[in-house]
Formats: sequence, structure tokens, C-alpha cells
Amino acid sequence: MDIATRVYNHRWKLDPIVRSLIDTDFYKLLMCQSVFTNRPDTRVTFSLINRAKDVPLAKLIDEGELREQLDHIRTLSLSRGESTFLRGNTFYGKRQMFRPDFMEWFENFRLPPYHLERVGDQYELTFEGTWPEAMLWEIPALAVLMELRSRAVLGRMKRFELQVLYARAMTRVWEKIERLQELDGLRIADFGTRRRHSFLWQDWCVQAMMEGLGPRFIGTSNCLIAMRREVEAIGTNAHELPMVYAALAQNDAELAEAPYRVLADWQAEHSGNLRIILPDTYGTQGFLDRAPEWLAEWTGIRVDSGAPEDGAEAAIRWWQAHGQDPRQKLVIFSDGLDVDRIEALHRKFAGRVKVSFGWGTLLTNDFRGLAEGDGLAPFSLVCKAISADGRATVKLSDNPNKAMGPQSEIARYKHVFGVGKQKAEAVQV
Amino acid sequence: MDIATRVYNHRWKLDPIVRSLIDTDFYKLLMCQSVFTNRPDTRVTFSLINRAKDVPLAKLIDEGELREQLDHIRTLSLSRGESTFLRGNTFYGKRQMFRPDFMEWFENFRLPPYHLERVGDQYELTFEGTWPEAMLWEIPALAVLMELRSRAVLGRMKRFELQVLYARAMTRVWEKIERLQELDGLRIADFGTRRRHSFLWQDWCVQAMMEGLGPRFIGTSNCLIAMRREVEAIGTNAHELPMVYAALAQNDAELAEAPYRVLADWQAEHSGNLRIILPDTYGTQGFLDRAPEWLAEWTGIRVDSGAPEDGAEAAIRWWQAHGQDPRQKLVIFSDGLDVDRIEALHRKFAGRVKVSFGWGTLLTNDFRGLAEGDGLAPFSLVCKAISADGRATVKLSDNPNKAMGPQSEIARYKHVFGVGKQKAEAVQV
Repeated sequence: MDIATRVYNHRWKLDPIVRSLIDTDFYKLLMCQSVFTNRPDTRVTFSLINRAKDVPLAKLIDEGELREQLDHIRTLSLSRGESTFLRGNTFYGKRQMFRPDFMEWFENFRLPPYHLERVGDQYELTFEGTWPEAMLWEIPALAVLMELRSRAVLGRMKRFELQVLYARAMTRVWEKIERLQELDGLRIADFGTRRRHSFLWQDWCVQAMMEGLGPRFIGTSNCLIAMRREVEAIGTNAHELPMVYAALAQNDAELAEAPYRVLADWQAEHSGNLRIILPDTYGTQGFLDRAPEWLAEWTGIRVDSGAPEDGAEAAIRWWQAHGQDPRQKLVIFSDGLDVDRIEALHRKFAGRVKVSFGWGTLLTNDFRGLAEGDGLAPFSLVCKAISADGRATVKLSDNPNKAMGPQSEIARYKHVFGVGKQKAEAVQV
Repeated sequence: MDIATRVYNHRWKLDPIVRSLIDTDFYKLLMCQSVFTNRPDTRVTFSLINRAKDVPLAKLIDEGELREQLDHIRTLSLSRGESTFLRGNTFYGKRQMFRPDFMEWFENFRLPPYHLERVGDQYELTFEGTWPEAMLWEIPALAVLMELRSRAVLGRMKRFELQVLYARAMTRVWEKIERLQELDGLRIADFGTRRRHSFLWQDWCVQAMMEGLGPRFIGTSNCLIAMRREVEAIGTNAHELPMVYAALAQNDAELAEAPYRVLADWQAEHSGNLRIILPDTYGTQGFLDRAPEWLAEWTGIRVDSGAPEDGAEAAIRWWQAHGQDPRQKLVIFSDGLDVDRIEALHRKFAGRVKVSFGWGTLLTNDFRGLAEGDGLAPFSLVCKAISADGRATVKLSDNPNKAMGPQSEIARYKHVFGVGKQKAEAVQV
């Protein structure tokens, strides 16, 4: 390294974890544009939720460092090159996916303030603002907490211990890729931004997937990495859309309609591979049973909770009942994936439907067993919309362990959406 | 990297494997000084011997590239810093290990010409000159051939394949080190220069040993790495001394005395930890049976062929028979070591003698099973003195698979040294 570079590097007060507003999941930007159009003034609060109570984040992560990282993110704005990429790139075969009015807003965007408080061994971290503003905190907030926790553990390790740690992690990822090479017709994407070990590690994993899987690796959800590595940016929509729409419903009838209202708004904007149903927010089976006919025309479905085989079979039955050919439909699995499950699902569904995988935490953060006390194992950290215009949001999911919201509201939602007994599945990552 | 560095790097016509005359085993320099004093004018021929006939070196390694590397080595001379290190450093607690007259010679030294010819799928590579000149080819020649073979295999691999290859190799070395951490009182050195995977890899292994084993890692045989990493340079003497002395013997009586004559010359020059007997050149048991009394006073013994337990037990019995306390004696194991054998030998001999290990090829070149067709597995390549003043050299060793020399001479040596039936052991590395 030359002297100038070293001197320049010494000027950094911190080593920023998130260095770009597009170091985020592509679907956040898609949803942001949709919200910017349809619900720009709704006030939403996002909140960090650490489902792993045994991971004492406030003991592991220094509050000052956390504030520095979050403050740094608030200084970020879209760079000229990033803007050019978003304006000029073809996403899913479509030019100008992002409209000029949205881009103009986004170019002037800064993230709103955060509220951080230590409560016991955990942090309370919330973000309030208009929906399009507050929602863009989710991914960088998660990435910062995950990486600060990694750094806390890594900071105690010696140089060659560290080298060997990464050597082992690389070997593990590569051995997974070698197993995936055996799956004919595989289509798999990286969905691991939010709970990644670190930015550089995610970037490494994406490149390893590119080399190891070739065209079977279809892209990454991370917009910045997609730009830099010249692969597709992948993603459609998430639970926050029906959750906020539902919270805003004035009565039970509106509530029952809310999930479909979301998709009607979405359909007005998007076609093709972006028309993917995420049916599990208030129970997959009920969602499908009451779905309007036009939804069966959509491209596919994303299975994100519950037993994935059940979700896929339910979708297949539903398509058949509506005269659709399941073989022309896309099923995207994205919940708790690792190679065993990917292999099993591919075996079971390849040929019956078009199968695709969004591989998250166990791609970009499988450091299980590699550090003392398993201190680098991934854990279940989320950042969710908890209220909209002052009303609590609710998620039921197909797994009661993923449900959230006030108990009374959960009961009301279960009643409205006809959700009966559910099977609990462990939430690992 | 800054632009100037890049431009500078582009000027290199080749990426030199050996970049320093002290990128060699420390004992070659010790022996060189001894030879420089006692037999400066003896003409010796060294020759490459590939014991692994199934490794077609001439198919794997381009002759032009090999010549370029060897030619580059002939341009090397001792740098000022290297000379200062050799003149000023304390080796084995002794200052001025290298005498001014030897250093003056070495500062003006260049390696003599080589003779290279392709014969079938192998290379014939020989070095002729005075003994002090020709002997310094051994280690760089081996290192060049080993690393060119590595490069040939690595050159066919893709970027992430390469990363994962090294990740796996690093993990393997580290797991060995973790096992060695369990051995109380371990003393172990790197002896892996000659058949290393590459210079950078040996350097990595040494650093990993330093961090992982702390004071249990006692140093490296590689003089350049010892200088750069500030660890001890380790080594004493090798088979070439008795082999050449023996070849020069005028009759059977002189022949029988030759191995002891070597050590008498050595004793005149060295004390302490440098007084290590290497008894196996013409059979360990016979060597000990006929050894003069003064040799029992020496510091220890190096066990380099045959079943290592047998060699160590023979030495213990011999010391006891000569009224020496084996617990005060050093036994250095240096043949075909890997962790299993190190553990077993440490368990068996720690406490009974002072145990030390010189760990070679399976420290610095354990890439077994890591490349396609096992193309990076180490193999048994040596570079030996084959004649002295026109007379063939002979080595018997405690393993007939390591014997060398003309058959008639082997028979004569066996007779003179009273070597009967020997047990053959596979020569792996």
C-alpha cells in the first residue's frame, strides 16, 4: 500500500459498515417506490426485534460504536453513479423500473433520526417517519447490528486464528456450492443482506456463487453488490406491505381485503417476475381460499414460513383449482434455507413447478461452530413495522413463532382471516 | 496498489521463486563453511532424483520456465542485509558462527552453471563444481521444481477455486497445530523448505506455527524466513558429508572411518546443540556399535530413516552403554513426520530423552486430496551428491528404499559397514 493511501485511511474515524444507500435489499427500493406512490404520508414506526433473547446485544455491542455507525448511515446519500445505475439499468428486463419522480425524491433522501435506548442487555432501536423514509432503515440497521456483533467477537481473536476462521467459513460455503452444482436446473439467488456476517463476506459469497454456479446463480438481493459485480438485483415484496395496509384498515371488512389491496396496487405497477404473491402474512391457506381470480394469473408465489412443502402444495392445488398450469408457475422458497433443504425441495418440486431459491442467512452468515462459545452463530434479528398512523401492526405468518403484534389484535386478525391451529416451527435464522 | 508499484511489477519478466541465496536450509550454510575449511577443492556433482516416477516432471513443467528460474538463481548474490544478518546474528547462542574468511567468500559467491536435459518425461538436472559451490544448488533447485509443479496445477484453476484451495490447506495446517497444542513440552521446528508448496506458503506456515505454538515452535530451517520473522534458524548437518567423505576414501579401512572423520571435523568447529549425530547414512546400529567413545558426549542424535522408534531406542541403549544419561540427550525426529507420528513419538519418548521434531513436507506441502487428480500432492524429490572427485557416492540409510549409488558399491559399503537385512519402509515425502 502506498503512503498516501495509508495516511488517507488514518483519517477515517470509524470503519463504516454501511457505505451506500443502495447497500440494501432491492425489494426495499421496489416497495419504497410503491409506497411513495400509494401511501406517501402514512407515519410508520420500525423497530428492532431480537428474537434470540440469549444473545445480549447490549453487552456485546458498545452503544457508542452503534451510534457512530447509525449516525454515519444518516450522512449517506445516493451517489451519482448509484443514481445512474438505478435510472439506467434494466431490472427484470424492464428499463426505467424506477420512475423519474421517485428517483428525484430518492436522490435528495437522507434517513430520518433513530431512537436508541439500552434496556437491560438489549437495545431498543426504533425508526419513525413517513413510510417511505422509515422503511429504508430496516436493512442497514440489521446489517450494522449483525456486523458489530461479528466485530466484537472477531476483535478478541489473533491474526492466524482469524485467517483460519475465514478459511473454514470459505471452505464451508464452497462445499455447499459444490453440492448445489449437482442440482440440474437449479435457480438460486443470494437473499442474505440483512443478517450477513459482514459486507465483505456477503460480497465474497456472491462472487463464489457466481464462479461456482454460473448461470444457476441468478443474482443477489443486494443492490450495491448487484451493481458492482454486474449480476441481477433480485426481489419483489415483503410482509410490511400487507401489515401496514392491514393496520390502516378501518374495520374488519377492510382488514380482510387489505392483503389483496396491496397486490392490486402492486399489479398496477409491475408485471412478469415481479408479480410474486407472498401469501403467509395472515395464513397462506386462508389467503388462497379467499383470493380474487386475477391473482391466479400472477407469475408465482414466495413461501416464507411454515413447512415449505405445505406452502408449495397449497399453491399448486390452488393454481390447479383455477385452471392454471403449475408447471408454468414460479415457487420461490426463502425461509430458513440451507443445502439439505434446498436439495429436498428441488427434488420434490423441480418439474412440477418452476423452482427458485432465495438463500439468506445460512449463505452469508454460516459461522456456526467456528468461534469460541459459538459466538459467531447467526441469530434471529428482525426489524419490523410495528405501527402505522399510531395503530399496531400484526403478523400471523404460517409459523406462530414468527407472529407479532398485541395479543388482542392477533386474536382479531385470526378471527378475520380464519386462521385456526398452526404448527410451530423453530425459528433459527 | 499504487500505479508506480504496478508499473514496476510489470517490468519483471518472471515471478522468481527463489529470490535470495539464504532462502535455503541453514544447515547447508553450516556444512558449506565446514567443507570450505576442510575440503574446499573436492569436485562434487549434485543431481536431481525424482523417486516418484509417476510424476512426469517434464510434462508438467515447461523447460523454458525452468531455465528462467534457474538462470535467475544464478544472478543472485548475498545482499548487504543478509550478510549483516549472517555475520551479526547469534545462532544457537553463539556469535560469529560464520567466520570472516567464509563470509568474504560467500559475499562474492554465485552459483555455478547447471546442466539440464529432458529425458522422456523427466528432467536430468545436475550441478558440478567445487563442493562448497555445487552443494548450494540443492535447496533452491528442489524449491524451484516443487513450486513450478504447483504453479502448473494452480494455473488451471479459477479464482474462487484457488481461494478455497488455500482455505482448505490453511484449515488443515491449523487443525494440525491445534492438535500439537495439546502436547506438553513439545519442541518442533519447520524443516520444510526443500519440498514446500511455495515460498509464500512456507512463510505462512511458519507464522501460523509461531502464533499457534508460541515457544513450542523453536524455529525454521529456512534462513531467510528466520531472518524476516525473527525466529531461530535451525539445523546441523546432513548425509552429504559422510557420503562425500566416504567416496573419497582410498580403501575399505578409510571408508569405515569416514563417517567418524566427518564428525571429528565437525566437532572441531561446533559445540552444543550443533553436535548432533546423523547415524543412518550407512546403517544406524553399525554406526553406533563402532562409534568412538567421544561421540557419546555429543548433544544428541537425528533419526532420519527407518522405523523412528527403533532408531531412538538404539541411541538410548548406546548412551546407557556408554554411561550417559539419555534424559540429558536430544533426539531429533525428522523423517516423514505428520501429526499422528509426532504425537506417538512424543508420547513414547518425552521424559526418557529430550525430544525435538523437524517437521518437513507435511507441514509445508500438505495439499493431498485438494486438487483434481491429486495434482498437488507432495512427492519424493531429492537432490543428492552423486559423485566426488569422479567417484560415485553411496547412501544405504536405514530404509533400503532410500539407498542410492551403483549396485557394486552398495554391496561393498554393506560389507564394510556390516549392514545385514533391512526393513523397507515406503518413502512418501
